[in-house]
Amino acid sequence: MSCLVFKFGGTSVATIERVLHVAKRIQKEKEKGYDIVVVVSAMGKTTDKLVEMAHEIMPNPSKREMDTLLTTGEQVTISLLSIALQSLGLSAQSFTGWQAGILTEAIPSDSRIVEIQSGKVRRTLDKGHVAVVAGFQGIDSNNNITTLGRGGSDTTAVALAAALGAERCDIYTDVDGVYTSDPRYVPKARKLQELSYDEMLELANLGAGVLHPRAVEFAKNYNIPLAVRSSYVEDEGTIMKEEVEVEKDLVVRGVAFMSDIVRVTVGYEGNYKGSLVNIFTVLADNHINVDIIVQTILEGVEPSVSFTITKENLADTARVLEVNKSKIGYCHVNYEEDVAKVSIVGSGMVSNPGVAAKMFDRLHKENITLKMVSTSEIKISVVIPQESMLLTANALHDEFELAASLAIQI
Amino acid sequence: MSCLVFKFGGTSVATIERVLHVAKRIQKEKEKGYDIVVVVSAMGKTTDKLVEMAHEIMPNPSKREMDTLLTTGEQVTISLLSIALQSLGLSAQSFTGWQAGILTEAIPSDSRIVEIQSGKVRRTLDKGHVAVVAGFQGIDSNNNITTLGRGGSDTTAVALAAALGAERCDIYTDVDGVYTSDPRYVPKARKLQELSYDEMLELANLGAGVLHPRAVEFAKNYNIPLAVRSSYVEDEGTIMKEEVEVEKDLVVRGVAFMSDIVRVTVGYEGNYKGSLVNIFTVLADNHINVDIIVQTILEGVEPSVSFTITKENLADTARVLEVNKSKIGYCHVNYEEDVAKVSIVGSGMVSNPGVAAKMFDRLHKENITLKMVSTSEIKISVVIPQESMLLTANALHDEFELAASLAIQI
Repeated sequence: MSCLVFKFGGTSVATIERVLHVAKRIQKEKEKGYDIVVVVSAMGKTTDKLVEMAHEIMPNPSKREMDTLLTTGEQVTISLLSIALQSLGLSAQSFTGWQAGILTEAIPSDSRIVEIQSGKVRRTLDKGHVAVVAGFQGIDSNNNITTLGRGGSDTTAVALAAALGAERCDIYTDVDGVYTSDPRYVPKARKLQELSYDEMLELANLGAGVLHPRAVEFAKNYNIPLAVRSSYVEDEGTIMKEEVEVEKDLVVRGVAFMSDIVRVTVGYEGNYKGSLVNIFTVLADNHINVDIIVQTILEGVEPSVSFTITKENLADTARVLEVNKSKIGYCHVNYEEDVAKVSIVGSGMVSNPGVAAKMFDRLHKENITLKMVSTSEIKISVVIPQESMLLTANALHDEFELAASLAIQI
Repeated sequence: MSCLVFKFGGTSVATIERVLHVAKRIQKEKEKGYDIVVVVSAMGKTTDKLVEMAHEIMPNPSKREMDTLLTTGEQVTISLLSIALQSLGLSAQSFTGWQAGILTEAIPSDSRIVEIQSGKVRRTLDKGHVAVVAGFQGIDSNNNITTLGRGGSDTTAVALAAALGAERCDIYTDVDGVYTSDPRYVPKARKLQELSYDEMLELANLGAGVLHPRAVEFAKNYNIPLAVRSSYVEDEGTIMKEEVEVEKDLVVRGVAFMSDIVRVTVGYEGNYKGSLVNIFTVLADNHINVDIIVQTILEGVEPSVSFTITKENLADTARVLEVNKSKIGYCHVNYEEDVAKVSIVGSGMVSNPGVAAKMFDRLHKENITLKMVSTSEIKISVVIPQESMLLTANALHDEFELAASLAIQI
């Protein structure tokens, strides 16, 4: 029998009422004859409350104990949702991460799944039960409880879908799909019907927030069709897959933007002959994520490198750079706050050389100051003053005619 | 190194502040050089709240799912207490029931421990860590999460003490020991320094409430000295062991009482020749606990049997008896509410034949109506009108001079 994996996030199961609503939603799909696996997150703000309790004791609690603490959140949801399904007359069985055979690396708080021993879930499905699995969690080879980090429940869902050979994995969330841009700030943003994995990956990495990049990566690697759908509204949502048919004429698929970025510029002595490896190794060793990196060595100009970080990493970065000044060998460093990043994404860009030119032309017309530019095969990002972010996003959305619906069949 | 097992109940860990208090308490004992295992319950009213959530969905949720739900309570406590111990500079590691190797029967909600694979806890102790174990929970051979029923955390503690060959098991609670009677109602009640397992077993079964009978039974079977101590006050508490030395002159060790009992009297036809087995089999099949059973067949008197149940089982009992009337073969049934049970307990009673006479004599003087009497080797119970309960308890406490401290050395 065909198998579907659904994932419901924290807001979708925030109250008993919503848990019951989710159960009814599952019932409808179950009645269509599918084997159904449901992956759930902790209810509403549960995780935050648990973190708060631990922080009342100490600011940096042990990661192992935090994982043991936080995983109770999903364990509550799986049992309540199973009970809710049973109250509708369905048979359902809950699985914690370890019960579902989700084996991870031995890295607390940000583990990756290494294997899913899905035999037990499979046998439960074969008996006609709905399997309700705790997202975000697993165990390592020493039977320690681990968690998968941010967006972990999405990853659990996609990984289970891969392990079970599911027909599709549906991520139910509080938005009804992936949009050409954020509809809260770009009024003409339009919901996409389809999207390639790579496009979603870029959008996710750009902070589109709908799906965690790791989950999309997993779906791409195992070629699992992945849908983003609304928990509240019944429609098809947006589906990600390898071959995107309907809208392939669309060169640019979406505009993403992210505020609260800091541009860091590190300057070296004129005769600096060392390697830039040092600075990025030091930052990586200190778990500081660096996004866009730009360097140009020009004759007669003091060598420097610029990169972007998120504002929340600013204090850490400043501390790490200060402590390692002599090791890195730079002579001065400058932090520029209040900058933002705007990106256009689309797999059609590779074969359309005019896209970048069109983008820069429009930005010039709009009088936007470009601070950094970075390109990939399916993405162009610009770093600009934060105050210009929404103007830029809307202008590019307009420039690439993303509002024009291309005969989308629902 | 000598090993101690401590158990802290729900009220002892009801808030972060109390969890920290418990951690400090453990630190003191750890500094004396012991290997320490701590068993904890869910914080405060957590379990009640979880039950409430499930009942919002349906009145009789699946027991398997309830076990999965409720065990999150202790899992929160083990991680928070481990973090609290770490914040004091101790190394500590948490264990859920399954991580601690607590294997139970495959009976949800009221399982018994069948084996403890304590190797992992042992190795943690050997590394000098405090092991913090979730009480009340285990797993069955199919990896289902199970719970041990009421008083389950006490049982976990004693069973672990047995498995690890601990020197002693200390049950920390909100009372500071076992008393000759309930000090809230018997003003002259005095804390006992020592008690035999059997005496405690009788007192526990009589509702003394300090310890669960199953835990005492376990301690007796494995000969683990078991102490009841206060989480708040630092003193020795009451210790249970096989040989009670100091107070062996005390013929009667304590007076226990329990209100809200119902006396059920079932009458049969005059010529009834059947077996009473029927009625008690039917009740047992319906999980209704029967306490005192009294039957006397007198010539010329209609045969009847009386037994006591708790008030909370009244509705169930009435239903079960009604449904099975023809099967049991009785002709009428009578329920008498507002009765209570008062018992005296002491291992010295076996060799002191005058105890019962002394008891009845005093009750007669106090004008107490006896409705039922039941005796065992170390206990005499009487069922009396509820309004006389406290008078009876105080009178018997006085009669057997339980207030007189017998040169107790603390």
